[in-house]
Amino acid sequence: MALKKSPLAPTSFPDFPQVSGVRYATGHTGMKYKDRDDLLLAEFSPGTTVAGVFTKNSMPGAPVDWGRKILPNGIARGLVVNAGIANVFTGSAGKATVEETASTAGQLLGANSTEVYIASTGVIGDPIPTKKITDLLPELQKNLSASNGQKAAATILTTDTFAKGAASICNVQGRDVTIAGFAKGSGMIAPDMATMLAFIFTDAAIPAPILQQLLVDANERSFNCVTVDTDTSTSDTVLLFATGAAANAVPSNASDESIDGFKRALYNVMSDLAQQVARDGEGASKFITVKVSGAASDSSAKTIALAIANSPLVKTAIAGEDANWGRIIMAVGKSGEKADRDKMRLMIGGVLVAQNGQRYSEYKEEQLDPHMKGQEIVIDVDVAVGGGSAFAWTCDLTHGYIDINADYRS
Amino acid sequence: MALKKSPLAPTSFPDFPQVSGVRYATGHTGMKYKDRDDLLLAEFSPGTTVAGVFTKNSMPGAPVDWGRKILPNGIARGLVVNAGIANVFTGSAGKATVEETASTAGQLLGANSTEVYIASTGVIGDPIPTKKITDLLPELQKNLSASNGQKAAATILTTDTFAKGAASICNVQGRDVTIAGFAKGSGMIAPDMATMLAFIFTDAAIPAPILQQLLVDANERSFNCVTVDTDTSTSDTVLLFATGAAANAVPSNASDESIDGFKRALYNVMSDLAQQVARDGEGASKFITVKVSGAASDSSAKTIALAIANSPLVKTAIAGEDANWGRIIMAVGKSGEKADRDKMRLMIGGVLVAQNGQRYSEYKEEQLDPHMKGQEIVIDVDVAVGGGSAFAWTCDLTHGYIDINADYRS
Repeated sequence: MALKKSPLAPTSFPDFPQVSGVRYATGHTGMKYKDRDDLLLAEFSPGTTVAGVFTKNSMPGAPVDWGRKILPNGIARGLVVNAGIANVFTGSAGKATVEETASTAGQLLGANSTEVYIASTGVIGDPIPTKKITDLLPELQKNLSASNGQKAAATILTTDTFAKGAASICNVQGRDVTIAGFAKGSGMIAPDMATMLAFIFTDAAIPAPILQQLLVDANERSFNCVTVDTDTSTSDTVLLFATGAAANAVPSNASDESIDGFKRALYNVMSDLAQQVARDGEGASKFITVKVSGAASDSSAKTIALAIANSPLVKTAIAGEDANWGRIIMAVGKSGEKADRDKMRLMIGGVLVAQNGQRYSEYKEEQLDPHMKGQEIVIDVDVAVGGGSAFAWTCDLTHGYIDINADYRS
Repeated sequence: MALKKSPLAPTSFPDFPQVSGVRYATGHTGMKYKDRDDLLLAEFSPGTTVAGVFTKNSMPGAPVDWGRKILPNGIARGLVVNAGIANVFTGSAGKATVEETASTAGQLLGANSTEVYIASTGVIGDPIPTKKITDLLPELQKNLSASNGQKAAATILTTDTFAKGAASICNVQGRDVTIAGFAKGSGMIAPDMATMLAFIFTDAAIPAPILQQLLVDANERSFNCVTVDTDTSTSDTVLLFATGAAANAVPSNASDESIDGFKRALYNVMSDLAQQVARDGEGASKFITVKVSGAASDSSAKTIALAIANSPLVKTAIAGEDANWGRIIMAVGKSGEKADRDKMRLMIGGVLVAQNGQRYSEYKEEQLDPHMKGQEIVIDVDVAVGGGSAFAWTCDLTHGYIDINADYRS
């Protein structure tokens, strides 16, 4: 099934800088997709540290089990990603696939298998024909190049309609540091996190425990703010690799001021990628930002923001360019979180729509026409019970979602 | 927008018995619908007891506020229901509408206004033109008749494609007792409960506190097992009225054996109505029953059942007649409830699909073709951690849902 590029896609893939110490190669196993690369090998120079966050789904795929197992070592020399089959609910065969893949890649890269990360995305329940991967890896190893970032980003896609990349440069203690990453995901997307794979590479020198803290913090305000369909994937994985080639002075802890710029740059890359995931939500025609303030706590605000962002009735109304704001009120109410019906305030596209438990007396629906017809919808709710705030990114729910998902495997 | 009758609808509205002590009349206010009745008045004989359950949405409409306020009195003489405008998020105007409606109806029925229940369904946020209701009520009072049950059931509909009725006869201490009810709801349907209005009438003599217990118990296994789109309405209301005209010996408590038959009959009526709501789920083409066993507790099983029943990816796969069972595994995993990935078992339509953490070796997808092409889909999951069980009813997610909800107000 050929999918049309999302109308919300960026005009082009960004300039994708080389990251010293990182090389990529891609190839075609043919395990599912016929005319495109579906296997990625990435190599990291010795000494590369790694941080990772994984799905909270309790039916994780074998690659997630593997990632969780090796992450405490904090070092990485390789990454293998395949698209088409997710290696989830595949029992002992799935475990063997991961171990053989890591072992083969490890040998090719001169590394231990426990230094090789694996990610798989695609259909659940089908076993992976392991040999198709392991037979191809030697060729990929020969083709490794630091300039293959964009090809790598394209290789890991499934129902995505565009490759998602982002990059940033920052300064750590006088050294230029590069951060570049790519992500995939467009359905089965909900915190925590999304089928969503994201891989971020930097030449910064940062010890693994600190890197982990930085990743978790940025993730909470980026990928964990994206939802497309409430369906949390079994394969969600975000990995951050730091080669150390920039040779910056190593920070002493996650609060070290020397990495303030790095944190901002990392967040920019991750939030850019996360928004691109929502912009490629299956069938998306509008990008929606939901902001919630005045909640009992930040986490309460996030629950409310996600209740709105996940509401099929809110999302279909937006697809229909209908300012049916009552559905937003409904979604706040169904969240189970504290909100004061008789004091709360709702704005859409900067227009005050409702306050004090009723429609704002001056509000005229025509005011919202230009906003609703646009591609970027902003919902702003103050629930009037406290100081907590949060946001969520999502897309509308259209016929395209049904088209894609009633026929995904064909 | 004219909606085609759901393919899952019963072939006809059931025989709807008269309930001694209950009379109905319907009329047309024109507040939203142009060519159909949209206002229902029901009258109950003196001494009628009442039980009720309401939405857990924290943005309830004014009619729900009112129902909660008067329910502790335990007596009812009247019911007014309008379709088209929900009287939600309408502030003091909404409150006044309810009070004026109850007062007018109370006067017409020779009752106190606090003995008159109100329910409204339709668009949120618009004020109700109260006079259109209060001006029409005198005419309705003149037309009250015990034989208007079917017309009453049709009057309360919104995006429903068929009227939903159910009835049962039982025996309480040697007296024949009738139970008859109707419901509406097809979108914004999720526990607890659904925009879903349901009104059940019986001539049994049952004190209000006992009636309440019976309603809550039956509701938990009927309306609270229905989900269409996760969107919990602000107006959900189930009311049970008991006129006492059957003159049975009054039960002493909710466990009194003399009402065992009544409980069964009440459950049959409520589960029948609840399933009809799912069968009329917006755009539904298949009715889905999800059964979960082996859970840590019954409530854990219900959470898992609803996670499956609410998953857009499961529902679109079923719409596409695709036995994409991995999505069911995903939904179990996203529920947050305890489940043993490596021991759980999944059956679809009675066919064993997966067990022990992987696809069942003898399973062939063709086995499921006849079941997936049918209108009644049954999913059966054993999560292998305990003895809890539960079920949920839902429907598939089709283009029809998008059609209806991207354009509901037009």
